Amino acid sequence: MHIDKHQITQHNEQLEVSHRRRFMRLADELPNAEQVIGRLVDFEVAIPSWALGTGGTRFGRFSGGGEPRNLEEKIADIGVLHALNRSSGAISLHIPWDIPEDYAAIRSLAQQNGLVFDAMNSNTFQDQPGQTLSYKFGSMQHVDKAVRKQAVEHNIEVIKHGIELGSKSLTVWLADGSSFPGQLNFRKAFQNTLESLQEVYEALPGDWKMFVEYKAFEPNFYSTTVGDWGQSLLYSNKLGDKAYTLVDLGHHLPNANIEQIVALLLMEGKLGGFHFNDSKYGDDDLTTGSVKPYQLFLIFNELVEGMDNRGMDHTNDLGWMIDASHNLKDPLEDLLQSVEAILIAYAQALLVDRVALVEAQAANDVVRAQELLQQAFRTDVRPLVAEARLRAGGALNPLQLFRELDVRGQLISERGTKTTATGL
Amino acid sequence: MHIDKHQITQHNEQLEVSHRRRFMRLADELPNAEQVIGRLVDFEVAIPSWALGTGGTRFGRFSGGGEPRNLEEKIADIGVLHALNRSSGAISLHIPWDIPEDYAAIRSLAQQNGLVFDAMNSNTFQDQPGQTLSYKFGSMQHVDKAVRKQAVEHNIEVIKHGIELGSKSLTVWLADGSSFPGQLNFRKAFQNTLESLQEVYEALPGDWKMFVEYKAFEPNFYSTTVGDWGQSLLYSNKLGDKAYTLVDLGHHLPNANIEQIVALLLMEGKLGGFHFNDSKYGDDDLTTGSVKPYQLFLIFNELVEGMDNRGMDHTNDLGWMIDASHNLKDPLEDLLQSVEAILIAYAQALLVDRVALVEAQAANDVVRAQELLQQAFRTDVRPLVAEARLRAGGALNPLQLFRELDVRGQLISERGTKTTATGL
Amino acid sequence: MHIDKHQITQHNEQLEVSHRRRFMRLADELPNAEQVIGRLVDFEVAIPSWALGTGGTRFGRFSGGGEPRNLEEKIADIGVLHALNRSSGAISLHIPWDIPEDYAAIRSLAQQNGLVFDAMNSNTFQDQPGQTLSYKFGSMQHVDKAVRKQAVEHNIEVIKHGIELGSKSLTVWLADGSSFPGQLNFRKAFQNTLESLQEVYEALPGDWKMFVEYKAFEPNFYSTTVGDWGQSLLYSNKLGDKAYTLVDLGHHLPNANIEQIVALLLMEGKLGGFHFNDSKYGDDDLTTGSVKPYQLFLIFNELVEGMDNRGMDHTNDLGWMIDASHNLKDPLEDLLQSVEAILIAYAQALLVDRVALVEAQAANDVVRAQELLQQAFRTDVRPLVAEARLRAGGALNPLQLFRELDVRGQLISERGTKTTATGL
Amino acid sequence: MHIDKHQITQHNEQLEVSHRRRFMRLADELPNAEQVIGRLVDFEVAIPSWALGTGGTRFGRFSGGGEPRNLEEKIADIGVLHALNRSSGAISLHIPWDIPEDYAAIRSLAQQNGLVFDAMNSNTFQDQPGQTLSYKFGSMQHVDKAVRKQAVEHNIEVIKHGIELGSKSLTVWLADGSSFPGQLNFRKAFQNTLESLQEVYEALPGDWKMFVEYKAFEPNFYSTTVGDWGQSLLYSNKLGDKAYTLVDLGHHLPNANIEQIVALLLMEGKLGGFHFNDSKYGDDDLTTGSVKPYQLFLIFNELVEGMDNRGMDHTNDLGWMIDASHNLKDPLEDLLQSVEAILIAYAQALLVDRVALVEAQAANDVVRAQELLQQAFRTDVRPLVAEARLRAGGALNPLQLFRELDVRGQLISERGTKTTATGL
Repeated sequence: MHIDKHQITQHNEQLEVSHRRRFMRLADELPNAEQVIGRLVDFEVAIPSWALGTGGTRFGRFSGGGEPRNLEEKIADIGVLHALNRSSGAISLHIPWDIPEDYAAIRSLAQQNGLVFDAMNSNTFQDQPGQTLSYKFGSMQHVDKAVRKQAVEHNIEVIKHGIELGSKSLTVWLADGSSFPGQLNFRKAFQNTLESLQEVYEALPGDWKMFVEYKAFEPNFYSTTVGDWGQSLLYSNKLGDKAYTLVDLGHHLPNANIEQIVALLLMEGKLGGFHFNDSKYGDDDLTTGSVKPYQLFLIFNELVEGMDNRGMDHTNDLGWMIDASHNLKDPLEDLLQSVEAILIAYAQALLVDRVALVEAQAANDVVRAQELLQQAFRTDVRPLVAEARLRAGGALNPLQLFRELDVRGQLISERGTKTTATGL
Repeated sequence: MHIDKHQITQHNEQLEVSHRRRFMRLADELPNAEQVIGRLVDFEVAIPSWALGTGGTRFGRFSGGGEPRNLEEKIADIGVLHALNRSSGAISLHIPWDIPEDYAAIRSLAQQNGLVFDAMNSNTFQDQPGQTLSYKFGSMQHVDKAVRKQAVEHNIEVIKHGIELGSKSLTVWLADGSSFPGQLNFRKAFQNTLESLQEVYEALPGDWKMFVEYKAFEPNFYSTTVGDWGQSLLYSNKLGDKAYTLVDLGHHLPNANIEQIVALLLMEGKLGGFHFNDSKYGDDDLTTGSVKPYQLFLIFNELVEGMDNRGMDHTNDLGWMIDASHNLKDPLEDLLQSVEAILIAYAQALLVDRVALVEAQAANDVVRAQELLQQAFRTDVRPLVAEARLRAGGALNPLQLFRELDVRGQLISERGTKTTATGL
Repeated sequence: MHIDKHQITQHNEQLEVSHRRRFMRLADELPNAEQVIGRLVDFEVAIPSWALGTGGTRFGRFSGGGEPRNLEEKIADIGVLHALNRSSGAISLHIPWDIPEDYAAIRSLAQQNGLVFDAMNSNTFQDQPGQTLSYKFGSMQHVDKAVRKQAVEHNIEVIKHGIELGSKSLTVWLADGSSFPGQLNFRKAFQNTLESLQEVYEALPGDWKMFVEYKAFEPNFYSTTVGDWGQSLLYSNKLGDKAYTLVDLGHHLPNANIEQIVALLLMEGKLGGFHFNDSKYGDDDLTTGSVKPYQLFLIFNELVEGMDNRGMDHTNDLGWMIDASHNLKDPLEDLLQSVEAILIAYAQALLVDRVALVEAQAANDVVRAQELLQQAFRTDVRPLVAEARLRAGGALNPLQLFRELDVRGQLISERGTKTTATGL
Repeated sequence: MHIDKHQITQHNEQLEVSHRRRFMRLADELPNAEQVIGRLVDFEVAIPSWALGTGGTRFGRFSGGGEPRNLEEKIADIGVLHALNRSSGAISLHIPWDIPEDYAAIRSLAQQNGLVFDAMNSNTFQDQPGQTLSYKFGSMQHVDKAVRKQAVEHNIEVIKHGIELGSKSLTVWLADGSSFPGQLNFRKAFQNTLESLQEVYEALPGDWKMFVEYKAFEPNFYSTTVGDWGQSLLYSNKLGDKAYTLVDLGHHLPNANIEQIVALLLMEGKLGGFHFNDSKYGDDDLTTGSVKPYQLFLIFNELVEGMDNRGMDHTNDLGWMIDASHNLKDPLEDLLQSVEAILIAYAQALLVDRVALVEAQAANDVVRAQELLQQAFRTDVRPLVAEARLRAGGALNPLQLFRELDVRGQLISERGTKTTATGL
């Protein structure tokens, strides 16, 4: 399955008149439409290799068809997404699910699809067939040094794969924690984990980053050893300059103010990256922007303000990735919706009148501050996002074209209905 | 303080060109702009008399100036709001804070301001000076029948005031509950409360409604005797046809799906009314739409669908009221923002393509269902809301005009800086 | 694997002196020790057939060894538990995981182990191999009548199996709901579900009960169609006298007051049964009493008070079942801990001085009410529970004996290390 | 009002026989009863001066009678508590509510009552009459340097009062934050706050500690500028060695694992003190141990383990204080219950078999670890606590004696029924 430039052009021609009208009307009302479009064109969100198949819960999984059966097909799927929206030009691999057999071939395939290799992900939250020691009671926190060593070595292995592919970062998400009071000594668990992370850190190439991801709960239900941003920051600070905190939107306690966390991590120079998704109850891993679009905007509002304050490059200085579970929707459609929601929130954040906002804050004019944020959020920026896509060579309406071309139908023809993507 | 029609006209003339342009562009894209505008013109949100002064928390209160000192000034304040936005033409009184001394004079004053009297509110959650028995341990749930009787009589008194003013409903919010395990027998508390409500219900005129408001917690911190929609519905069903459940957006446990509750109460014919506000943590009583605007839209989406399904009149068949606490913002500005947010959400809900949504649901096309809702939500409907206001004789930008006319400054001149509104 | 009476006797003889001392000292301080013991002897908690294997999360599963491979071995496992604690004399089956091939043989095997058949559980939250229609988008709520019919027929099939085994109740837990706004019409989902439940209800024998279980979220992450006690009660009331609400402790929003829900359901005559477990974050399905033992006591406090008020039989008039997931602990040890925690909470609730509590409540003596509850809770009732077990023929310390006899080791010898129990 | 030693002796004589029996039986079962008693005798919990009057919510306050009218009477009240339980020998003052007019007289009065002066508390969350600048929009975070300066100077003033009285620590709780998105620049608010705290820190005597208290929400409802332990730790680390984090049990998001936070802060050498209370929903400020006694035990379990690991003195190296709001109970009775609950949890934590627990953790024996913790928690340690009190010269049952002596009645005679304690 491959999307042809011709197909995109044809689609765009059909929609162009109405798009042009809406875009011109919007641009006419905005002071900085071209600047926003430029930023949108540059923006990329990485797609994780495990998000291309149907997800599930502990209660079950309802597979769709045409899921990718190997790394090559995963790359092809992301190639389809990127061809459609021109904003998904990076893939994030998960080891051991995506171990390449032939690096050069994989690199070449990625290049053909316009993709680069984003952060590598290790897995010490599951036992693999043939694995010597079990992670049932944790990996880097484990009371047994041999288990910790196994986890460290796995991470170093992951780095090696990444080096071959041109990745520049390692994301470490640890499920380590406990489900019952008394199970762990919290201090020892922290110190074991720190020591293990340090060993991985030492194996990190000089131009790499390590992202320490935190999560409040699940799969452990009493404590998690990297449980919140405060803990992640402690680890990152103790590890060194190449270590950063990674924020996954679904990994917080109820009602947490994530945008404030983002602002403070940026202040400390320790925000490394993002996992986008949405949720109502826990780590629900729903389509980004499907439940709390205003929160997503508020987060981007802090990102833009905070990155600009530090003179950071919006596109390259943070790792942007979707991390969701596609239980009910077609995974590719879900990803198209997520990328669109991210671009919309980013565009809205770029529209905030920062000079006026600083003035309102300086005057404690809370009413005006709210008006300024909502002025940006209420603006229907979809024509800007579409225009950016058009200029970058993508489709004006990726989802519509995905359906018109019956991409899923073709994938099912190619791969069958009973395939299950490797991974979760 | 009074807003002159002339002032509004002058304001509108200044903004009219840009408004007209934006409105025409939007209307051009919509299939049903005129219908939506008609609905918006008809819509009214009642303002509670206690929302006109600065609110506070148990930690303190930071008063502003120019707060209304009596019922007459409260009516005047709402008159200002209504003159500006033409959607605040109702006042909801709270007894004993707003006992009229001269019914005819108050009715006449309200009429001059274009206001009607919405739901009456009783207060059995505080002890008033000179009150015989205390509500420290509850009112309608109280173990002592004499306290229950006092609470019942107070409610009957409130009804009498309401009859004189032309109100048609009574809202009963009970703080009754317990703060410690063991304090209450839950069953007896329920039964006492039911019995008390029945006595009030019997005193209700034939064309009145009783709204039974629920709240999960605060000011009691272990249990509340009308604690959730299930309990309120139990009471309402046992009381009879004139009893309904009232939903206050801030009165739920974390993560509750309020829009589903709304849909089910409508299905049962037992949804009576709404208290609008917004919140992040508990009953934070923030400006409506300031934290979770998408949730507000989803609620309106259910309201529109559910009311239409039952053939209900959008404007009159449910009681709409703001119930917020203005701790930091100028109360009148806060109310203008809230009404605007409500109208925006209502307009968005009216834009949902219901035929297509039913089709998508019938096909389990989750992706499309989301697109349809977000198509409505992403649309910038502010020009529609402004146009409706313009046609109804209000200001294109009420907040801007409020500031240009320095309404607050004038109120301070009239009333002084140290006034405190009666009430909370 | 089978526990011999001789082994229990030997174990008890070793512990008897110290037990006798502790028991006598405790009984000496209590007014009603013998009455409590009598109640404890009578009490039974059903064990679900799916709780005998290692559980997991969507992130993985770390199996132990010696798990039961079929219904016969599940019965044997519960036989072991029951031999040890004499309080686990019932098994709750799950169809299709436990379809008996030979009813008579299974009945006979259960009888040999001293077990009866508790509530039958249907499964319409997963697709089974060969199943005609998918439950991906719900079962009893489904927009397609054919799917609803399939779900109804499955439930009727489950009833038939139950009749053969002597069960008297059906537990219906529906995962039905939605993960995205717009996916469902809440009202239609409710009505479809009600209609489906009615068809099952009609197939219910006259002496059976139907338990309608509710759950706030998971596996759906936006709405659940039987989402809280209010919804379950609506269904139960519309279904009829044989329909009841079932409360699972983990199925609530954060901070819910479950004991109040229990009290109100008992008041309405609609509490049907319980699923015991414990949790900190969501439906964590941890060992009962491992995280919030005081909450468990408070719930039993309401159960005892409410059942006594209605003249209900503590043992038989409600369905008691454990429903937990044993991800880290040996499932049988976990179940022994859970049953012990339940008996402790029940014993404590039986110790509450009800006359004094009623007096304290009547006097609004909140301090005293708390003292009375905590007097019961602080009492170390473990010797009472042990004594009850001793008199019933069980082991003084079931967990200790389980380990001394190396039950797990024997099960592994018999069944191997790589077995996986059928089910979740 | 003053409790006579004679009255205590008489009370103890009446209860001594039954106490002695229960104590002997318990001590007989424990390996370390005397050691625990020694620890309990040494333990002191400070009482805040503002906890002696009736508390309230924003909805109202239901005063009792006999509340202290000035600092002298507050000291007398705590003197009564300390005479009864011998564990409340410290008072924590709040400025400006408790500004002493005559230091020597106050010191002398405290000494007569056996009290020392614990942490001083500043107040920049309210405006005081005559205050130049308002804290409506924050204090140490304020955009206006003059407001920050005023807040800093107030804190320095508080330190000066404390020096005169012999206090050795300052608790800074800031309500600073925001209620609406956009109101604050989070980074600037943090940096302003840090700069202000640094100025206060510089004024701190060499042997003082500064406690930086955090709180998730309320009275601000969108963000708090010292919002969680991670933020507090950031401030403390940037401030220096004399700065510590203070944990208030009610200041967390739902479901937070407070015991883990405690363990990590101890690990970092940055845990400074505790505010005890209990809660179900938010900062409910209920009686300690009234809702979640097991959580309280788990926290003490970490405290004991962590302090012992660092060689800390249990009594003096952390600041222990109750911080609750007594809305329904007699404040003195409430405090007696709270201190009792704290001592019970502490005693239980001291009973944990640490050697066995370390072994169980090393073996990942989760079942046994739970048994070990619950063995300590299930033990009815009340006789140990009573024995410690007896040896220290207090009453066997402080609450009972409080009522027998009709302390409240006497206080009402002395002070009247309509007094309101200064403070909240």
